[in-house]
Amino acid sequence: MEKINKRKIFNDPVLGFVSISDELLFDIIEHPYFQRLRRISQTGLSHYVYPGATHSRFLHALGCINLMQITHKVLKSKGVAISKEEERASLIAILLHDIGHGPFSHALESTLLEGIHHENLSVTFMNILNEEFNNELTLAIDIFLNKYPRKFFHQLISSQIDLDRLDYLKRDSFFTGVSEGNVNSERIITMMNVVDDELVVDSKGIYSIEKYLTSRMFMYWQVYFHKTSVTAETYLIEALKRAKQLVKKGKNVPSSDVLKYFFEKSDFVEINKKDLDKFAQLDDSDVVSALKLWQANEDKTLSLLSQFIIQRKLPTSLIISEPVSNEKLELIETAVKKLYSVKDAGYFVHQKELSVLAYNDTQDPIRLLLKNGKVLELQKADNQVLVKDLRKKITRFHLCIPREVYDIK
Amino acid sequence: MEKINKRKIFNDPVLGFVSISDELLFDIIEHPYFQRLRRISQTGLSHYVYPGATHSRFLHALGCINLMQITHKVLKSKGVAISKEEERASLIAILLHDIGHGPFSHALESTLLEGIHHENLSVTFMNILNEEFNNELTLAIDIFLNKYPRKFFHQLISSQIDLDRLDYLKRDSFFTGVSEGNVNSERIITMMNVVDDELVVDSKGIYSIEKYLTSRMFMYWQVYFHKTSVTAETYLIEALKRAKQLVKKGKNVPSSDVLKYFFEKSDFVEINKKDLDKFAQLDDSDVVSALKLWQANEDKTLSLLSQFIIQRKLPTSLIISEPVSNEKLELIETAVKKLYSVKDAGYFVHQKELSVLAYNDTQDPIRLLLKNGKVLELQKADNQVLVKDLRKKITRFHLCIPREVYDIK
Amino acid sequence: MEKINKRKIFNDPVLGFVSISDELLFDIIEHPYFQRLRRISQTGLSHYVYPGATHSRFLHALGCINLMQITHKVLKSKGVAISKEEERASLIAILLHDIGHGPFSHALESTLLEGIHHENLSVTFMNILNEEFNNELTLAIDIFLNKYPRKFFHQLISSQIDLDRLDYLKRDSFFTGVSEGNVNSERIITMMNVVDDELVVDSKGIYSIEKYLTSRMFMYWQVYFHKTSVTAETYLIEALKRAKQLVKKGKNVPSSDVLKYFFEKSDFVEINKKDLDKFAQLDDSDVVSALKLWQANEDKTLSLLSQFIIQRKLPTSLIISEPVSNEKLELIETAVKKLYSVKDAGYFVHQKELSVLAYNDTQDPIRLLLKNGKVLELQKADNQVLVKDLRKKITRFHLCIPREVYDIK
Amino acid sequence: MEKINKRKIFNDPVLGFVSISDELLFDIIEHPYFQRLRRISQTGLSHYVYPGATHSRFLHALGCINLMQITHKVLKSKGVAISKEEERASLIAILLHDIGHGPFSHALESTLLEGIHHENLSVTFMNILNEEFNNELTLAIDIFLNKYPRKFFHQLISSQIDLDRLDYLKRDSFFTGVSEGNVNSERIITMMNVVDDELVVDSKGIYSIEKYLTSRMFMYWQVYFHKTSVTAETYLIEALKRAKQLVKKGKNVPSSDVLKYFFEKSDFVEINKKDLDKFAQLDDSDVVSALKLWQANEDKTLSLLSQFIIQRKLPTSLIISEPVSNEKLELIETAVKKLYSVKDAGYFVHQKELSVLAYNDTQDPIRLLLKNGKVLELQKADNQVLVKDLRKKITRFHLCIPREVYDIK
Repeated sequence: MEKINKRKIFNDPVLGFVSISDELLFDIIEHPYFQRLRRISQTGLSHYVYPGATHSRFLHALGCINLMQITHKVLKSKGVAISKEEERASLIAILLHDIGHGPFSHALESTLLEGIHHENLSVTFMNILNEEFNNELTLAIDIFLNKYPRKFFHQLISSQIDLDRLDYLKRDSFFTGVSEGNVNSERIITMMNVVDDELVVDSKGIYSIEKYLTSRMFMYWQVYFHKTSVTAETYLIEALKRAKQLVKKGKNVPSSDVLKYFFEKSDFVEINKKDLDKFAQLDDSDVVSALKLWQANEDKTLSLLSQFIIQRKLPTSLIISEPVSNEKLELIETAVKKLYSVKDAGYFVHQKELSVLAYNDTQDPIRLLLKNGKVLELQKADNQVLVKDLRKKITRFHLCIPREVYDIK
Repeated sequence: MEKINKRKIFNDPVLGFVSISDELLFDIIEHPYFQRLRRISQTGLSHYVYPGATHSRFLHALGCINLMQITHKVLKSKGVAISKEEERASLIAILLHDIGHGPFSHALESTLLEGIHHENLSVTFMNILNEEFNNELTLAIDIFLNKYPRKFFHQLISSQIDLDRLDYLKRDSFFTGVSEGNVNSERIITMMNVVDDELVVDSKGIYSIEKYLTSRMFMYWQVYFHKTSVTAETYLIEALKRAKQLVKKGKNVPSSDVLKYFFEKSDFVEINKKDLDKFAQLDDSDVVSALKLWQANEDKTLSLLSQFIIQRKLPTSLIISEPVSNEKLELIETAVKKLYSVKDAGYFVHQKELSVLAYNDTQDPIRLLLKNGKVLELQKADNQVLVKDLRKKITRFHLCIPREVYDIK
Repeated sequence: MEKINKRKIFNDPVLGFVSISDELLFDIIEHPYFQRLRRISQTGLSHYVYPGATHSRFLHALGCINLMQITHKVLKSKGVAISKEEERASLIAILLHDIGHGPFSHALESTLLEGIHHENLSVTFMNILNEEFNNELTLAIDIFLNKYPRKFFHQLISSQIDLDRLDYLKRDSFFTGVSEGNVNSERIITMMNVVDDELVVDSKGIYSIEKYLTSRMFMYWQVYFHKTSVTAETYLIEALKRAKQLVKKGKNVPSSDVLKYFFEKSDFVEINKKDLDKFAQLDDSDVVSALKLWQANEDKTLSLLSQFIIQRKLPTSLIISEPVSNEKLELIETAVKKLYSVKDAGYFVHQKELSVLAYNDTQDPIRLLLKNGKVLELQKADNQVLVKDLRKKITRFHLCIPREVYDIK
Repeated sequence: MEKINKRKIFNDPVLGFVSISDELLFDIIEHPYFQRLRRISQTGLSHYVYPGATHSRFLHALGCINLMQITHKVLKSKGVAISKEEERASLIAILLHDIGHGPFSHALESTLLEGIHHENLSVTFMNILNEEFNNELTLAIDIFLNKYPRKFFHQLISSQIDLDRLDYLKRDSFFTGVSEGNVNSERIITMMNVVDDELVVDSKGIYSIEKYLTSRMFMYWQVYFHKTSVTAETYLIEALKRAKQLVKKGKNVPSSDVLKYFFEKSDFVEINKKDLDKFAQLDDSDVVSALKLWQANEDKTLSLLSQFIIQRKLPTSLIISEPVSNEKLELIETAVKKLYSVKDAGYFVHQKELSVLAYNDTQDPIRLLLKNGKVLELQKADNQVLVKDLRKKITRFHLCIPREVYDIK
């Protein structure tokens, strides 16, 4: 096998070159658990709407490394002490923050691993890697779980201005071409500082923060909650649910061995090593390959749902301001049964709440560092121009149905 | 099913918005044959070296549409008459120029469809689509096959400055992050003109052309011929060859039905409708899914090759100036047999010539339009600064072996 | 003199190539009145804060041409009839929308041409050019003055989504490097349409509009109202006011002849041809050259103000939420007199209101075209997420004083 | 005056944020000698061809700081020891490398300061600043003058891959919009290393180097040697020569005091402090203001030359492969005398050699660091694909005349 040069430079089209000079970090990247992320797309089926959005979770994780390195440099230049161990641990923590992600969306995980929360998966992966790497990941895991006293490390990984968001918003904007979501990550990081071991932002960066919060909101409405993406994702989940149900009924539902494993097992209380190894073999190709086969399945529902996705013949759905009533939904279901000649319209008719809270001022608010050294919550700043309005949750409803039955009486 | 709005705007992160206002064009894009290209990556396994390069052939084809539309506008503004029929036909021809592309590289096609040339596949696809669409593709096919008397339409699809190249170089540069390959496609198109129904370039665009030719050369050496990509591609082909051979021997080689179809059938003289329909179901996911399974195959060779790719544990290969001798290759094969404990080292040891001719001045040279109205071949222009040197073919050799056996005596 | 090729392509780093194929348009660009804009910076002294912002009004005007050409193409593709005459006239109108702009900011004009409104200057320029060009600009002037019945042409030149704003926001964002202001002009234009000869935007573009309105607001707070820029501009105006006053008192204030002309004459009721010709000779270099000389002027006030600007030794000013009282201002003036040893502190102490209304829903609101063909004002749309909040005017106060006297009691 | 916060971040649209954390560096930037560079354009009159190219030398110098900071980081990460003193000194040296630049091109300096070489001016400026700053610039000056034993510091400031070039090529490409010149500066720096205190480039960066050398060559032919720019520059120099001559003859040639100083004095043997202080007051505005006035000068030659430039009514010149003969030039001069009704055609007729040597393999060649640790000159590398051809000097001739007299017999 390859004699690996343990210093590597990746070329990221979004953020430029990422240098990996830490051997441990490099070894984790080489691990099959992590390489797997090459085969999991970052934005699921969003490429059905934005055809450039085929980028992988692998690339996103590398981008986070880059941002963390920049953050270290900025903070150290401002006099924040960061030890070698903290540096490495925070890099590992951000690298692995999404290691537990399965194929396509989080939603799919809940179908395949009923009862197991996504974040638990990541932690389980980290623990097993920690064993493999002689407990060198312990501090990283502590940071990830917010057990480390210097809170800002965790806040860089999970908060309203974490590096995860700073990377994926900029990245998804880049690959979708939706410039509305472009975020000036570098500037925001340049404005970061640490007070009492908590993350703050220099007050002169307030407009960059406000701009970032609005960009994030727009990315939700334009990309993540795009009607067609949500429809595609919904039917993808339904296809897997249907397949699982058919498997349980003993029907013939061809699929890869690992997919079959998760269809057959459903009593996950806790995840064990074997489950995890199986899960680590799953990626987008299993799901796509299965859907391709299922297009011709004898089960009408499974076949239809699979065709919707593979041929991108998605029913036109709606996004509406007020939810339709249950009575209306029943009427729709009846019409859908007829339209598709299926017995159970439940797979085809869904109403889902979509909400965005651009800025949460109660849980872990963003804090500004004023010139006089005081720290102030963002929403209380004198010169904010938009934040107050961003605290309102905005809610819409996605009505995942064939458009033509909507006007039915 | 969706009531399709026959006017669509795609958001291409590279070139901006692509408007599809022609219904026929739109219907072809909607066709499963074309939608399939969403699942075929443009640069195969190059994302193993440049992790951003996960873009699809679907996106490239849309980009070509965009460039063709710009070209029409430029040429018409210069007084070149282009009829509605020609406009549509040239759009269709460029849209479908790669419709016959199979999963991963062209090389793979030769394994799956021995004896069938890639371009024939595209033409076969076009012919079948032509039937489906009431012969509305006839002119497009004529242009594609260079049977249409106004040669410049074909030259826009296939020549040394065709729109295919202008798109893929810019696009691959964008997604790999290799800025060396960035091509000023818009400027080159702005300089295009037509004389006697042949494509020419305004002489003031000469530096843009020279720059484009060098960029193309650099993309070959930095991306398409990157040692690790070539290694990955080589072993991918070998894995499929091995699988095919095992199938013929009656061994158990799990794979999708369509892949199996091509493993079992090998006497392709001409391709028929059934073959094509099967082929149209193939995409990257079939190959990835198969390789994942084969990692654990009882055949050592197949298992090793599959692990190389899936786990990205690729032997470190070499690019050298002079080929090694057959004697040396034999020594290497012996060492490899021992290293991997395999009987046939042929799957693991390859020497391949890599050549780039940056500019071909004999076959269909690029022609400049001088201010005095005369047409001159690029290499004869007074003010060229590099073209003469770009006419030399540069050749290297890729030695696909594990690096550690190279120094063996 | 040059035999001009009446077809020209400009290379704009922001928007790409601009093709000028209309001879009249080309001749207007060649006119000294227009060439003068090469020597007037688009963002005045903003380059003191954002050193890349040295772009000229000439470039901005070309960019507007580009956007107008794209708009024509988009609207025509949607079936909006636009005649050759309208096309040319709207191009001329946008080209000349700022032709009356003097050196640096509009504010300076009021010093040099007391009582003459900036827009009148543009119209006067247009009228004189109209005479020179045999009344070929009549329709352009009608459009500019909103006298042409097809209102959308005027709205493209002056409204809340006019091409002027779409260009300058994107352009100023590009040259300042303030990515918060980057506007997806192309997308907004792609969404434009015309109903009853008025400009509308397809409702699916709503987020792009909301994003654009917020970006504009951020550009105000981060760039146009940047405290240091406003300070520099304030003192620039004061320097010219002081110079004018000294001239009137018969003092020696060296300056270029044209500048002198405007210092000496101040009874502008209406502007005449001679005034205009003089004005057309003014540009940034007159002001900069004068300030350089004035640094050593015997008048202390003029000398100080000039040094502030030329040496970029600007007193640190403040932006505050509530205005300070007149009493406080008087205290400050007293302190400033002492600090600078000047008799009249009025040149050095200024309080100015800065307001931004991101979206005006009463005067000429932006109108959306719904899928059902109805037209709706932006703020009434169901799926707006931010517009309602953007209707609030936000006000701050710029206190242009030396920071060190602020805390005086 | 402003109480300066001695930590500053500049926003550079090309390279991103530049942080100045060193106080001395900051104070030098604040110095009027350096602030003056804000009023000197980087590419002279190139904005007559590329209207976006209005960027200043000030911005370029800041960009060099940024690149030097990145270089320090890269080299240190590879184990190259760089002391705090060396770090600061190399930053100052690159910051000031162009401090002696006068308005517009170097060529102008030779008119204003006959006999004084441009680089001497920079050194004189540095020496005077060194006195002001208590000899803290001594090491910087040593590096600039290549007196410091660790050669690589000088090579970063002046060599075939110095940071000056890496910045200005990328920057001029950005502002002109000529993407042919875009250079991947960051990648080249990432590949830099130091062996025996001399600068080398990792051999895997060879294509980036080749690409950079070709880009540089294209920038010369497309931008720096653009026929219209060279014409404008030529006539600008001639205008100043003419003015100087008229001044010596005692004629009335209005101009700023500092310009007058240099017109009147011409016996520069060495430059003294007074000369330098005068020179430090010169910038583009003096020249532009003077030219504007001279348009109406009674001297026909001066008036014509000034009109050419200010009104951008430049005679169309030619770039040719072979120089025209002296006989031909005399014919042309005769025709020009008649055409312009001037006595001395010498101001209007010029033939100038334009040469580019893309790569100089004899003087300080670029050196590659091979994987085996050996150092090899670029042109000797096995895998170079273009360098050998880039060693040929390419020469053209600029014939600065009115095009219409060229075909005269």
